[in-house]
Amino acid sequence: MDTASPLFLALDLTGVFAFALNGALTAIRVARLDVVGVVTLGIITALGGGIVRDVFLDSLPPATFSDWRYLAVAAAGSLVAFVLGHRLDRWTNPIVALDAAGLSLFAVAGAIKALSLDAGIAQAVILGAVTAVGGGTLRDVLIGRIPVVLRSELYAIPALVGALVLVVTTELGAPEVPAAVGGAVLCFVVRMVGVHYGLHAPAPPGAPEEDR
Amino acid sequence: MDTASPLFLALDLTGVFAFALNGALTAIRVARLDVVGVVTLGIITALGGGIVRDVFLDSLPPATFSDWRYLAVAAAGSLVAFVLGHRLDRWTNPIVALDAAGLSLFAVAGAIKALSLDAGIAQAVILGAVTAVGGGTLRDVLIGRIPVVLRSELYAIPALVGALVLVVTTELGAPEVPAAVGGAVLCFVVRMVGVHYGLHAPAPPGAPEEDR
Amino acid sequence: MDTASPLFLALDLTGVFAFALNGALTAIRVARLDVVGVVTLGIITALGGGIVRDVFLDSLPPATFSDWRYLAVAAAGSLVAFVLGHRLDRWTNPIVALDAAGLSLFAVAGAIKALSLDAGIAQAVILGAVTAVGGGTLRDVLIGRIPVVLRSELYAIPALVGALVLVVTTELGAPEVPAAVGGAVLCFVVRMVGVHYGLHAPAPPGAPEEDR
Repeated sequence: MDTASPLFLALDLTGVFAFALNGALTAIRVARLDVVGVVTLGIITALGGGIVRDVFLDSLPPATFSDWRYLAVAAAGSLVAFVLGHRLDRWTNPIVALDAAGLSLFAVAGAIKALSLDAGIAQAVILGAVTAVGGGTLRDVLIGRIPVVLRSELYAIPALVGALVLVVTTELGAPEVPAAVGGAVLCFVVRMVGVHYGLHAPAPPGAPEEDR
Repeated sequence: MDTASPLFLALDLTGVFAFALNGALTAIRVARLDVVGVVTLGIITALGGGIVRDVFLDSLPPATFSDWRYLAVAAAGSLVAFVLGHRLDRWTNPIVALDAAGLSLFAVAGAIKALSLDAGIAQAVILGAVTAVGGGTLRDVLIGRIPVVLRSELYAIPALVGALVLVVTTELGAPEVPAAVGGAVLCFVVRMVGVHYGLHAPAPPGAPEEDR
Repeated sequence: MDTASPLFLALDLTGVFAFALNGALTAIRVARLDVVGVVTLGIITALGGGIVRDVFLDSLPPATFSDWRYLAVAAAGSLVAFVLGHRLDRWTNPIVALDAAGLSLFAVAGAIKALSLDAGIAQAVILGAVTAVGGGTLRDVLIGRIPVVLRSELYAIPALVGALVLVVTTELGAPEVPAAVGGAVLCFVVRMVGVHYGLHAPAPPGAPEEDR
């Protein structure tokens, strides 16, 4: 997929908006923050994963930070959450779906960028997942809780699956657009199935079951 | 402003000393630490913001880490805090003023460096603020509390204002020295007025007011 | 020491395995995590210090992330901890010794790499210690506790001592292999003596003594 095409840009910015909105809402619910904190955490949730990926790829300055459109969309999503946060409770389902869409787009886009910069196969899969979950992880660290992605829910696994499908199929010679669509759709489906049925990744043997 | 001039160096090292002292004192008060922890956190508070900025600007290795004078001054400020920590309580007002001076110097110096490396306008303002508040944010994460800058007080806002003044006036053609002085003085005044009157940035609508 | 020699690689991968195992075990004991969390934290403990060092040295992409053997060994150590975690309690002493060996190897290897990339003397010592303690620090931040290295035990100090010996002796003209062996052995001995006698680094004057 041409990462400079208008379609790619539109999809990517949709993911940024979704992550900023959801990231800022999570921050508001968990911690007592002011407007600087909410907008900062929304932007970090939206752009943090891509920035970490770009550090690992030596692709600095980070692309999403240099491009004012990403900053503007991330700030807009965060401000919507700041202003309307207490009225968005009824929109939980659409927001979860939008977040899953962002997860899928970021996992695939992150893996594409890693491959284009000659990362290895395993590294591209990992960096796809890092792009998808890195921002939320930074947000959780900043608001003082153990990152959700480390302890419950199927969140990192769909991102790894989506990136893996993209990487394996393109390495086998598949054209990039169907590979990207396939990886993103699979990631989205796994994530939404996990949310619907309350699935979790396996815990260590002998770990207590309650609260999980 | 010539960032290699002796005046700039003296001002910058003053900011480093102030941040190291204040950062180490905060760390001592909040967490139970040993000498390694206090000095490490003082150095991180003093140099962390500039290091994060340099990662974003692809200006590695980080300037303040490579220059032994910055490391030495940061270590000295931290050691003063370690040794005299319990006797510095009566010096709260001077320390707050010194910290505000550091905030102002770092916001302006960070924005100048970003502009000199061809960052965009919005990016230069953000990186000025990141330079000013990044070190304290890293320290707060390491001692397990939600960064003060995200939840209360006017701390990020004066830094953003100072960096904005510097960036806008120099982009409009103003000479750099008065632009830098103007930005730094405005940042310092806004910060000290905020401290004096106990001002906070706005919280999300509907958020509880107590404890703020 | 030739960092590309088979001996160096074998020692380095031993350190990676030890850190991944110990890091994942610590994560399991402190926080409730799933398999993604345990493996992620094991890998971060094993590779995080070297990655931070490589950012500071502008040696990106990070060497240990690009080399699949490091990723594979780190993942293997983490999976062993995940599967056998609750049965490894009787192995505490060997695991502590293995961790001390990893600390020693990483401190010396980190300082060697820093010197080879023209870092200053103080910077090379600091980066040796960062290589050794950085991964565990990142893990502790992610599981929500104040990094052990900042608050108790002799952990950073042996790493600093080992790196210092390596840097000073090689700067004075000693051949690298005995300098590295000397630094690593001294680090290991100081660490194990500290563990055996329960030694701590000094706390700030006036700090409460209990719980230390």
